Amino acid sequence: MSTHKTGLKSKHIVLTSHPVRFGQKPLPVQWGEADPFKRGAIIGTLTNSAHRNVIGTHSGSYGVYRALAVASGQLQSDHRADLTNTSPAEHIGPHPSWSDPDRIVSLDPFGAIVGEVYTDLYQQGYDIRPTIAVTKAHINMPELQEAIIKGRIQVDGKILKPGGDLVVTKAAIEPVWYLPGIARRLGVSEADLRRALFEQTGGMFPELVTRSDLHVFLPPIGGLTVYMVGDIAAITAPDRPLAVRVHDECNGSDVFGSDICTCRPYLVHGIEACIQTAQEGGAGVIVYLRKEGRALGEVTKFLVYNARKRQAGGDRADAYFARTECVAGVQDMRFQELMPDVLHWLGITRIDRFISMSNMKYNAITQSGIEIVERVPIPEDLIPADAKVEIEAKKAAGYYTNGTVPDEVTLAEIKGRSLVE
Amino acid sequence: MSTHKTGLKSKHIVLTSHPVRFGQKPLPVQWGEADPFKRGAIIGTLTNSAHRNVIGTHSGSYGVYRALAVASGQLQSDHRADLTNTSPAEHIGPHPSWSDPDRIVSLDPFGAIVGEVYTDLYQQGYDIRPTIAVTKAHINMPELQEAIIKGRIQVDGKILKPGGDLVVTKAAIEPVWYLPGIARRLGVSEADLRRALFEQTGGMFPELVTRSDLHVFLPPIGGLTVYMVGDIAAITAPDRPLAVRVHDECNGSDVFGSDICTCRPYLVHGIEACIQTAQEGGAGVIVYLRKEGRALGEVTKFLVYNARKRQAGGDRADAYFARTECVAGVQDMRFQELMPDVLHWLGITRIDRFISMSNMKYNAITQSGIEIVERVPIPEDLIPADAKVEIEAKKAAGYYTNGTVPDEVTLAEIKGRSLVE
Repeated sequence: MSTHKTGLKSKHIVLTSHPVRFGQKPLPVQWGEADPFKRGAIIGTLTNSAHRNVIGTHSGSYGVYRALAVASGQLQSDHRADLTNTSPAEHIGPHPSWSDPDRIVSLDPFGAIVGEVYTDLYQQGYDIRPTIAVTKAHINMPELQEAIIKGRIQVDGKILKPGGDLVVTKAAIEPVWYLPGIARRLGVSEADLRRALFEQTGGMFPELVTRSDLHVFLPPIGGLTVYMVGDIAAITAPDRPLAVRVHDECNGSDVFGSDICTCRPYLVHGIEACIQTAQEGGAGVIVYLRKEGRALGEVTKFLVYNARKRQAGGDRADAYFARTECVAGVQDMRFQELMPDVLHWLGITRIDRFISMSNMKYNAITQSGIEIVERVPIPEDLIPADAKVEIEAKKAAGYYTNGTVPDEVTLAEIKGRSLVE
Repeated sequence: MSTHKTGLKSKHIVLTSHPVRFGQKPLPVQWGEADPFKRGAIIGTLTNSAHRNVIGTHSGSYGVYRALAVASGQLQSDHRADLTNTSPAEHIGPHPSWSDPDRIVSLDPFGAIVGEVYTDLYQQGYDIRPTIAVTKAHINMPELQEAIIKGRIQVDGKILKPGGDLVVTKAAIEPVWYLPGIARRLGVSEADLRRALFEQTGGMFPELVTRSDLHVFLPPIGGLTVYMVGDIAAITAPDRPLAVRVHDECNGSDVFGSDICTCRPYLVHGIEACIQTAQEGGAGVIVYLRKEGRALGEVTKFLVYNARKRQAGGDRADAYFARTECVAGVQDMRFQELMPDVLHWLGITRIDRFISMSNMKYNAITQSGIEIVERVPIPEDLIPADAKVEIEAKKAAGYYTNGTVPDEVTLAEIKGRSLVE
């Protein structure tokens, strides 16, 4: 097999690794240990395969593009990141939740500070990559400028600057799955979880089945981003208020402002609440999770849109969930059970203002041990006309509302636009 | 191994499949055939593994969530989609480009119309999923409302409605990679590409190596979305103008309006150009590709932000690309070589107004045989102050400009904000 032009190093291809094939045991991972050295570094590097102690590799699904870069000779397969000046722009943790093996199972709490806590391992030649990066930014959304003009939020010069620039700390987080913990969270055996992950992806990562000694998996899926407003210390201070919105990606609304759902308007409302709460001496947190179309993906989402708008009787709130179930087999695949991990990474124990009506998110968060004081529904005037179908269907299915829950007759009367309008 | 509570069916686990293990040969795929039946259906289903003629499965990276749904018993592994009423809301193609095996290699041109062209196979029990979905929507962005007020665009009541609602046709497209074509596009052998995809992802899909009889791969990566403005027929009409922007995801700017780059302002400028061109009797096309942080992912992006803003001398245009290369080993992993496929799916042969300054995108599109008449740079007044570092560095590196290309002295003087400002 030719390797000229590529960044590959010539060697024998190992199709499926088994513990016995490895002379040198990889460094162990003791998930939930408070001491990062005892917990063990997460090593997903491809520069030295003997050092790997996980299944999969870094950067979520972008690992596939990395493979193209090596194949085409643009990237040498042994490239090691120069992490100079990349350490977190704000200090987060450690928090007591970091050392509870069941509290955080889908991210590495030490992921942002690997350069700091694993200095010795770096010197021994281990290539350890951060799975979390924390930076600072100024963001500016047109709706916030309007909120200033309308007097809903005020410029204070520090959190919210003249012109509507909002000062934020933000963290990007890659998924790091501790499989025994994920299995417990879903109420299945680790063996069944591993087998489903292997088989139901069309045979991705046989190591899920062959390497029962490796318990950490870096899945090729999108991660999440956290936007923090105000003083970071206020996020965990018991006497300071905290606003939180947990938002699942909806590209059609978040970026393009599609009027079939409430995603961007509710997101902006959440950011307004974060600003107000930070200005009261507290903090605000927006979690943005890459789970497009309820983690069914956008192709399924658009197929469902067509089925909703073409069904007999048109797009109706009383048939909202049924159309998704016909196409996808389920209403939702977001697995909110895993979502609270990021809140525990931030050390959150109480949310004063929860900017979400989702009962699934509420249940997942409160069942994980975080108190939610107040639930803030989306203001009626922010709901686009065509999004009434969605919001009323969700209220009937258990979404929080301080208004009326629609009955079956009302639901059947709430209709959306057809495809030809 | 217990399978109670899960949606798995009990059977022997096959770790690595080889052609010889299959008694029944899967239906062949003759990539580039004009007749969809001769070309063959792309079958990535998991309901009947003997029918599979691809490596990987549907829904890009969301296939992993599907596995969780099966593991937790919420989804039966043999669920087949009910595709009633889901067919495309607008007819696209076929175009001559669909039957050129080298023109389209990263998506299935028949992906939207599988229900129509493979009716016989459905009746024979084949579970064929659409990889493209086409729907219609109304979108409304605050910047477009402002553009109406300022008189840059006009409400016409059909394309752009009162209140700023823009009528669009949109398509979601999942990646479908024809590996021999991808390899040719990158200038490597198929064997090297397959090996790199397997090894450089940490051992994902051994079938890349063992199943040389299967040439189609459904990679677990994000796909793309196409927004079409105006009459679909105008996209390919030789006498009607066409505006196109090809936009790579930048969540921090596209959704949150981060001021470190020009992504959302340029996207909105592209949509304005699409509206104007459609109102002139032509059409506009926005392609939105899920390639966050130049396909390096957001963790790498934020690490680079920190390194840029902390380096000696601060964030400087003359060191803009160097910091990315230190961390990632390359400046960019987007592989624009694959991007023109979606334009060929739409049948585009000429772009009158190309709303992008990227030389990489320009080169990829023109080298694929599409003429670009005019390149439209971002208006100066849309560039956020802190984004000057990016845009000037890119101009110096080859980005199109109708103004001055900055020299080294100028570049060194263009500075961005530090992390403490």
